[in-house]
Amino acid sequence: MVKLSELGERRLIEEFVRALDKFGGMLLPYNDDVAAMEIRGVRLALSCDMLVWDTDVPRGMSYWQAGRKAVVSCISDMAAKGAKPLAILASLGLPPQLGLDEALELMRGLNSGAREYDAYIVGGDTNEASTVIVDVAALGLVEGNLTSRSGAKPGDILAVTGLFGKTAAALLMYERKLTPSSSKLRDSLWESLTMPKARLKEGLALASTGVATASIDSSDGLAASLFELSRASGVGFVVEEVPIAEEAQIFAEEFDLDPVDLALYGGEEFELLVTIARDSWSMAADAVDKAGGKLIRIGEAVADRKVQVYVEGSTRTVEPRGWEHLRLGASRDMV
Amino acid sequence: MVKLSELGERRLIEEFVRALDKFGGMLLPYNDDVAAMEIRGVRLALSCDMLVWDTDVPRGMSYWQAGRKAVVSCISDMAAKGAKPLAILASLGLPPQLGLDEALELMRGLNSGAREYDAYIVGGDTNEASTVIVDVAALGLVEGNLTSRSGAKPGDILAVTGLFGKTAAALLMYERKLTPSSSKLRDSLWESLTMPKARLKEGLALASTGVATASIDSSDGLAASLFELSRASGVGFVVEEVPIAEEAQIFAEEFDLDPVDLALYGGEEFELLVTIARDSWSMAADAVDKAGGKLIRIGEAVADRKVQVYVEGSTRTVEPRGWEHLRLGASRDMV
Repeated sequence: MVKLSELGERRLIEEFVRALDKFGGMLLPYNDDVAAMEIRGVRLALSCDMLVWDTDVPRGMSYWQAGRKAVVSCISDMAAKGAKPLAILASLGLPPQLGLDEALELMRGLNSGAREYDAYIVGGDTNEASTVIVDVAALGLVEGNLTSRSGAKPGDILAVTGLFGKTAAALLMYERKLTPSSSKLRDSLWESLTMPKARLKEGLALASTGVATASIDSSDGLAASLFELSRASGVGFVVEEVPIAEEAQIFAEEFDLDPVDLALYGGEEFELLVTIARDSWSMAADAVDKAGGKLIRIGEAVADRKVQVYVEGSTRTVEPRGWEHLRLGASRDMV
Repeated sequence: MVKLSELGERRLIEEFVRALDKFGGMLLPYNDDVAAMEIRGVRLALSCDMLVWDTDVPRGMSYWQAGRKAVVSCISDMAAKGAKPLAILASLGLPPQLGLDEALELMRGLNSGAREYDAYIVGGDTNEASTVIVDVAALGLVEGNLTSRSGAKPGDILAVTGLFGKTAAALLMYERKLTPSSSKLRDSLWESLTMPKARLKEGLALASTGVATASIDSSDGLAASLFELSRASGVGFVVEEVPIAEEAQIFAEEFDLDPVDLALYGGEEFELLVTIARDSWSMAADAVDKAGGKLIRIGEAVADRKVQVYVEGSTRTVEPRGWEHLRLGASRDMV
């Protein structure tokens, strides 16, 4: 009998989708960042995200931060599709020995995460469990263009909303005890894990322009997200400029690591990875700029379905790996 | 420091609600069966329900049954408010050692539960966890009257959509090894635990009449649901006829138990408990009848805020207990 650990999350999800009767009114394919549908003329998006304490929360992260991050992670999916989150449900599994103070800290974190993006926690469910479990489900409103993962075309510009590599460095710091000498760097890396931000204003701005051809949130890491866009759109990508955060660069130098690897094979940066029709680039970049964000051009979509990066004049083929659940050890599995 | 086990679920939820910033557009109070809101003129309902394998699933229940029951439990909340479930998200926590066959059985159960009520699983999330966790979130459409828990008035008729006591008997059979001699009875009790039904058509029929003054799903048990309606509406109840299932009666006789206790202090019967304005009783009963269900009159709402039952000519005051999470031992905690 095949075990989930042998199968991995991606193939499991394919099997799950195959097992379902399909709702004909879906506005996006199954297994996009959100489920979207039109109800009485109103386009709605649904997404959910589960956080399991034992496997997803690094020691030292507070209940408040974990609650907030669970919401941010769910809102990041909405951001990738240009959906405005309105209402959020929080299902909690809680150990009976947990203190009320901790439980309230968790709930205040959930509340803060929602309010940060102008949404509200409107309900939930409480249960007994042996570890803390937080499942967040969000309802969002789609007003602009609903961008799938599957519309990228050869020649489109590939762009991201921010830089990568800090969370991978933070995990190495946390798990392998690679402690940078600079306390400012330590704080910055730790913050990337504990206080991530969803690129909601960027996603809404892009949706309002309607010129993104494909979009995905990068929570599984840059490489995995590139592969997912590639698979869904039937194109390849050439990354001319790997978007490496300065902190990841410094960390890599101190510990003799490859900064490109940190940027590619991290996860939970919650940046958006998008493709833009070439002649609409400035419209997209301006809209994100006006919203207070930035759109960073990193490469282009190509017909050859490989994912390649240019690093110091040579080409590397990217491996299709990231933070896949169920296959990796529990300690590498992050939300 | 107060632990959740000392506080209990009801007080914890009150504390949680206090900790939240409130969304002004809610159509029902916080902590009703669903969260309801109007978006662009469309009234929507959201509900969620978490199932934790170790604490909520009796041994012998199949993955298919557990998946189906998780959905039914969530749809029961929709039924109580007259909301038609449309789209369902399933967040799963899965142990890496779990077999693909079991995971698929679980997903097929979720799918069957949704299709049984004309809804679809439209998305979800998969995660690594040490035990199986299923969190179901549903989006529903409100077309008829949205009935809160708080509108019952003295003089209103108290009614239920079915009989109680089988699940309590089933748990005694399962946990305390009280095995009835009749195999037919054993099967029927076990089925009440493993194959519950949500009273959706009854709830939708009642909502279409608009004459229910209050409504709640009885998943925490009849007594607990009576107390919750009492608390929310500021009325008491006199139950003239405790709605005891025949199977519970037979079970009680065989093991010398009180059948009234089985009916009151069970849980997860998923019947609706409603109050109806006296002069509209026949309209409500006819509507439910026409929908293929039945509305059983069991008593009335009274000004005195106690919950009392008449049993064999004498009056008993009901205790405010049921299947409250976090306070009871894990083995009594059922979904």
